[in-house]
Amino acid sequence: MNKTRLEAFSDGVIAIIITIMVLEMKVPHGADWEALKPQWPVFLSYVLSFVNVGIYWNNHHHLLHAVHKISGGVLWPNLHLLFWLSLMPFATGWMGENHFAPLPVAVYGGVLVLSALAWMLLQRALLRIPGNAAILVEALGRDWKGKLSPLIYLSSIALAFVHVGLSLAGYALVALLWLIPDRRIEHQLRNHGE
Amino acid sequence: MNKTRLEAFSDGVIAIIITIMVLEMKVPHGADWEALKPQWPVFLSYVLSFVNVGIYWNNHHHLLHAVHKISGGVLWPNLHLLFWLSLMPFATGWMGENHFAPLPVAVYGGVLVLSALAWMLLQRALLRIPGNAAILVEALGRDWKGKLSPLIYLSSIALAFVHVGLSLAGYALVALLWLIPDRRIEHQLRNHGE
Amino acid sequence: MNKTRLEAFSDGVIAIIITIMVLEMKVPHGADWEALKPQWPVFLSYVLSFVNVGIYWNNHHHLLHAVHKISGGVLWPNLHLLFWLSLMPFATGWMGENHFAPLPVAVYGGVLVLSALAWMLLQRALLRIPGNAAILVEALGRDWKGKLSPLIYLSSIALAFVHVGLSLAGYALVALLWLIPDRRIEHQLRNHGE
Amino acid sequence: MNKTRLEAFSDGVIAIIITIMVLEMKVPHGADWEALKPQWPVFLSYVLSFVNVGIYWNNHHHLLHAVHKISGGVLWPNLHLLFWLSLMPFATGWMGENHFAPLPVAVYGGVLVLSALAWMLLQRALLRIPGNAAILVEALGRDWKGKLSPLIYLSSIALAFVHVGLSLAGYALVALLWLIPDRRIEHQLRNHGE
Repeated sequence: MNKTRLEAFSDGVIAIIITIMVLEMKVPHGADWEALKPQWPVFLSYVLSFVNVGIYWNNHHHLLHAVHKISGGVLWPNLHLLFWLSLMPFATGWMGENHFAPLPVAVYGGVLVLSALAWMLLQRALLRIPGNAAILVEALGRDWKGKLSPLIYLSSIALAFVHVGLSLAGYALVALLWLIPDRRIEHQLRNHGE
Repeated sequence: MNKTRLEAFSDGVIAIIITIMVLEMKVPHGADWEALKPQWPVFLSYVLSFVNVGIYWNNHHHLLHAVHKISGGVLWPNLHLLFWLSLMPFATGWMGENHFAPLPVAVYGGVLVLSALAWMLLQRALLRIPGNAAILVEALGRDWKGKLSPLIYLSSIALAFVHVGLSLAGYALVALLWLIPDRRIEHQLRNHGE
Repeated sequence: MNKTRLEAFSDGVIAIIITIMVLEMKVPHGADWEALKPQWPVFLSYVLSFVNVGIYWNNHHHLLHAVHKISGGVLWPNLHLLFWLSLMPFATGWMGENHFAPLPVAVYGGVLVLSALAWMLLQRALLRIPGNAAILVEALGRDWKGKLSPLIYLSSIALAFVHVGLSLAGYALVALLWLIPDRRIEHQLRNHGE
Repeated sequence: MNKTRLEAFSDGVIAIIITIMVLEMKVPHGADWEALKPQWPVFLSYVLSFVNVGIYWNNHHHLLHAVHKISGGVLWPNLHLLFWLSLMPFATGWMGENHFAPLPVAVYGGVLVLSALAWMLLQRALLRIPGNAAILVEALGRDWKGKLSPLIYLSSIALAFVHVGLSLAGYALVALLWLIPDRRIEHQLRNHGE
């Protein structure tokens, strides 16, 4: 199996996802600050989603870098992850246009949870390939970020119907956790003298 | 001829096709479940098409991986396949927005049939290149999936005007047939000690 | 300079151009043949433009394959070509939506002429790099297709205001000329024992 | 860390940004010159932005070509640059549709300034990687273009509220400065006998 082509296709899809989200920011008709104002929530949603998709790209990059071999069994878990990520522009646009109303904020969290689950399945599919386990298990360690994120997302979904601000704080918190770059894998690779 | 660039270009086009389909899911104006409801058929169409385009990418990946050489005569059969696939977003959107009305469902099947025929022509163009035949013929075997799929598609097109549910079941059946990964080529390559 | 990255970027832009043109085919609201009818001219424009952009990709592929070295001086001629090609979706959509009215047909030809000129400039920029001239001059030969195409385009632009059908026949004729794959370069390379 | 994949992803995002900007040029409904007229400012904005994004791609190409190693710490500065560039289609569309009204012209400049700052941060992140400094410092020299550009942008933003033409002249001036290809790095590499 061809790791390069899997990476190239994933890069393509993620690049398109991260870029077409900006199309949800419709060009306003007026030319003053008033015309720009209703775009603020859309812009903030865009920033949040850009960071989230950026995190997935970084982690995908690190994960596949750490892996020596892929097999045909990885293609669908990878496409499954891309599927949920591809719903980000829709969820982002819906949340932004409705100025962070409870249901769109919760649905946005739903897309995040399902992306996080798809990510776990992809990790597992890579672990199952003989030869990958040793370095990957060590590199991922206890993977507390990967385990904590869906829990925070689920709480945020529930909180959306109580106080939308708390819910968004949850999404932002997970993004911050991951923004601290995932040096585990890089360290691991360095230790292995690569 | 440069196999890598053919793959890269195909990856690019397929990545864009699979991603812009999501743009057909228009962001609804309301913020409640009611507003989301009319999007369900569009979402289901999107899932079906995402899987179908994903299958084509996987098969394209396997097919070109199994092939040692390409020639200029492959470029147009490849573009021809991409052409029919590029109509998927249109057919998907039309089918979804009209809540699976008979004609859009049949036209969707038409795009699937023509993509399947284009796929066959691409296989043949690759077989015609000296040096490819041996491994490819063995790898594809009797290619019963490739031969059965257009037949089911054609039946589904006819069935669309009788009972739309049966027609969609046909499309789903073909997708399931292919979701079982095409291990033939991978087995073959392993046997050849690659 | 890095030939691979120039190719990858060009592939990306051309892949996007060829695919977003399909977005001009708006999903019709009705679900019968009547609703599909006004889309026919848009569809035909799309086919013509898909073939044209496909030809550029094929030729770009062959041209850069034949070239040993690129330099920084090639980047802008390449971007210049991509600029005119990027106007294809607009020109295609305008021509299709207005059912081949004279002015949009002429403007479409204008985009084709300017793309053809940009192509010539790119060829020249590649020829100017030391080491490329020998093989490229031989491979391109007298380049009668490259010289004839803009002349036919210019005639077609004038003819658009006389009889639109003749004008479109001119565009189709050029496309057919190029569809016959540009085997010159491949032959040349084979002779050079590559 | 994998330089190729960083380049591929950046190429993908930049290719999409440069191409989707053309979608802001809406296909007009009429088929005469009158219908095309209101598209002129949009077209001119598109040309300016195409050149600007093209410059960033060229410089990105040169910068990463000159660099031997990247690290995980480069991923976010790179995504940060892509974020500001991704706002170009919005800013371009807003400026074009409002026929170069003062505020949109100033906001466009804001996106340019922030992209320029992000570019500086990316340069710095690359300089910080051991082994890159020597060749990069020499290659960039005093980097007067990189330092002058944001200053001209800032003046242009202020000038937008005085005379829009002067402001646009500022943006065009910076573009011209950079269009003269950044041969510094190429010279440098040649001197180092690469």
